Amino acid sequence: MPQFLDATAPDFETKFAALLGAKREDSPDVDVVVADIIADVRARGDAAVLELTSKFDRLDLTANGMAFSAEEIDRAIAQVSADDRAALELAAERIRAYHERQMPADDSWKDEAGATLGWRWSPVSAAGLYVPGGLATYPSSVLMNAIPAKVAGVPRLAITVPTPDGQINPLVLLAARIAGVDEVYRIGGAQAIAALAYGTESIAPVDKITGPGNAFVAAAKRRVFGKVGIDMIAGPSEILVIADKDNNPDWIALDLLSQAEHDESAQSILITDNAEFGRAVADAVEKRLETLQRRAIAGPSWRDFGAVITVADLDQAAALSNRIAPEHLELCVADPEMYSQKTVHAGAIFLGQYTPEAIGDYVGGPNHVLPTARSARFSSGLSVMDFLKRTTLSQMTPAALRAIGPAAEALAISESLEAHGLSVRARLDALND
Amino acid sequence: MPQFLDATAPDFETKFAALLGAKREDSPDVDVVVADIIADVRARGDAAVLELTSKFDRLDLTANGMAFSAEEIDRAIAQVSADDRAALELAAERIRAYHERQMPADDSWKDEAGATLGWRWSPVSAAGLYVPGGLATYPSSVLMNAIPAKVAGVPRLAITVPTPDGQINPLVLLAARIAGVDEVYRIGGAQAIAALAYGTESIAPVDKITGPGNAFVAAAKRRVFGKVGIDMIAGPSEILVIADKDNNPDWIALDLLSQAEHDESAQSILITDNAEFGRAVADAVEKRLETLQRRAIAGPSWRDFGAVITVADLDQAAALSNRIAPEHLELCVADPEMYSQKTVHAGAIFLGQYTPEAIGDYVGGPNHVLPTARSARFSSGLSVMDFLKRTTLSQMTPAALRAIGPAAEALAISESLEAHGLSVRARLDALND
Repeated sequence: MPQFLDATAPDFETKFAALLGAKREDSPDVDVVVADIIADVRARGDAAVLELTSKFDRLDLTANGMAFSAEEIDRAIAQVSADDRAALELAAERIRAYHERQMPADDSWKDEAGATLGWRWSPVSAAGLYVPGGLATYPSSVLMNAIPAKVAGVPRLAITVPTPDGQINPLVLLAARIAGVDEVYRIGGAQAIAALAYGTESIAPVDKITGPGNAFVAAAKRRVFGKVGIDMIAGPSEILVIADKDNNPDWIALDLLSQAEHDESAQSILITDNAEFGRAVADAVEKRLETLQRRAIAGPSWRDFGAVITVADLDQAAALSNRIAPEHLELCVADPEMYSQKTVHAGAIFLGQYTPEAIGDYVGGPNHVLPTARSARFSSGLSVMDFLKRTTLSQMTPAALRAIGPAAEALAISESLEAHGLSVRARLDALND
Repeated sequence: MPQFLDATAPDFETKFAALLGAKREDSPDVDVVVADIIADVRARGDAAVLELTSKFDRLDLTANGMAFSAEEIDRAIAQVSADDRAALELAAERIRAYHERQMPADDSWKDEAGATLGWRWSPVSAAGLYVPGGLATYPSSVLMNAIPAKVAGVPRLAITVPTPDGQINPLVLLAARIAGVDEVYRIGGAQAIAALAYGTESIAPVDKITGPGNAFVAAAKRRVFGKVGIDMIAGPSEILVIADKDNNPDWIALDLLSQAEHDESAQSILITDNAEFGRAVADAVEKRLETLQRRAIAGPSWRDFGAVITVADLDQAAALSNRIAPEHLELCVADPEMYSQKTVHAGAIFLGQYTPEAIGDYVGGPNHVLPTARSARFSSGLSVMDFLKRTTLSQMTPAALRAIGPAAEALAISESLEAHGLSVRARLDALND
């Protein structure tokens, strides 16, 4: 059973603070190992990557064999069923359509002083996407990372995916093909991140690395940050469901479990204005846990980090939601649109009872890479913006420089930056001659 | 004298690679000290901050006295000259106008399946801006950080600025007032970053911290990242000037020196298609260095990290510029607009000979907080986006769920995430009954 909290009880603040502060993840400290691996790959390139792949993935490759050939990809994806292919293609199409709308516009204008100002967006030249191997290989994540990069116009997109004992999920290769990925390497771990960041004889370096991974991958991404850009370091998944009593308790139970089944550290919280409904959902969770395939994961997650919070009214629910700043927020209430205006800190909001969060994981269109651990207070999910950067543009005319140059000179002098002031003054003097 | 490189010489690649790879900054390793300070502030709050302020800034404060009162700010800014005030106000107005155009739009639409999709931008609830004290106190940086936050709609904006021995630059307080800053604290160092990130009895925590600082501040920002959002960790300033022979060598020399005077680790590079012009600029730099106030800083910067590169033509200059990915790029050429299309990796571009980079530091309008150390390949200058986050929205109708739900279920099953699939299936079954 999860925690039951009553938001109108006197001890609620203490309990809620404990819930928010609960340390859910105990990452092993692998930083020293990772630093060595990165140094090794920088020093020895392919040779180091090949040795580490042999050691960790029990796979002996040659430098030429690190990349999947087009024929190898063809053969693998021929095994995918027509239904799975159709599902992936539908997902890709919807994700692409959503992300195409995100493309920001360039701008340029002449202001009152006569200066031409503006900005221009341009894609990174090359991006690398890390795809975990083994159990947690999610073809949907390939789509969610690769499609925004390609929509942004990234000309070169490389994937690394470890293939322990040579095993690869054909759906991952199909997702890469559908998304337009240019290169796929059968390497993983910190050595893959190092190869993407610094390059080797066989793998050209990239400018941006995204994608989920284990503690080694996360530590490696932190270490190469600065040399390349990275996306967020994602923590365990979370869902907050705000539901009134006019919901099917079993549906809500399944939504809570669809986060809990990801990871024992995942967190699922229900907030409701009806205590009886909350109890009914908790009962439904227990019932589903009896048979759920991943009950060994979902059970501990729900027991250790799950919570059912009863509130006086839905406005209180919205206020608590803003303090939780959940990765995923379901609004299963009569007027979800109105409450979505009040819940301003959330990675993704799913409105109404026909929008289970799982739709957003696959086919909704918005990205499923979202801020965790309350970081929705200050950050956003993955988007085309992660693969673009903005260059600001300015051009003065002589008249514009005469109009605003003296103020720049005055401020430069006040900051004791003489050359700054002189670089303006020399031009002004020439114009005034 | 700086390095002279000839891009058509056989050894150019080696020399250029060395120039790109030169380690310009040797940050002291202060991480252990900073970790202790953060832990102390988390444990003891105000008391720790007051002790550390007494120790590092030789200033004994009370908890109540940490914030400047409105009257204290009034008194300080009364000392500012009318000219300086007018210059700051002009700068603020232009920065505000530029950043207002950056505000991204919300979107919402119904797609072919009948799903309503969209996103919504919202500001962070509170932001903290670090302002260095002492010599490197730049009121212009207050404007450049605070105005985008306020344009983004951040309701609470706090500044921390150390006041060693009680000294404060009145222009910093005036800039804060003009920008609409809500709270100004006279604290600094890692203790200020810890107070902003975790809060104390007197200082409420914020969600995002921006602003430049010394090695302690940078290390503290890295450490609190995740708990709060941070902007980039800026390295030493850089400028690349691409200039043809039809320029005044003295103007170009001053532009190069206006970066060099920031920091001995700053880097100023000229690329020209005319070797004689390059030599003339280098001579003009030497002449200006004889009298420049900050020659003790600008001289070593130019000597150790400056470079004059001669190229065969301006297309080669643009190609080298993309490899350098400079923070600031001046295009002092006959057709700067055309070359700006070719220089895609740069933080800010200044077009034409009447746009010295110093204009952009103060009054141009675009932000002067820009990516350094080649990170313009994958990141952008500060903008309103740094103070906003995006929440994605999706709402399915029963018809939309029937249309796309089965694909989500298929993908969930292929990823062995049963509860994900069931959360969709339970609804589809009810709809089909």
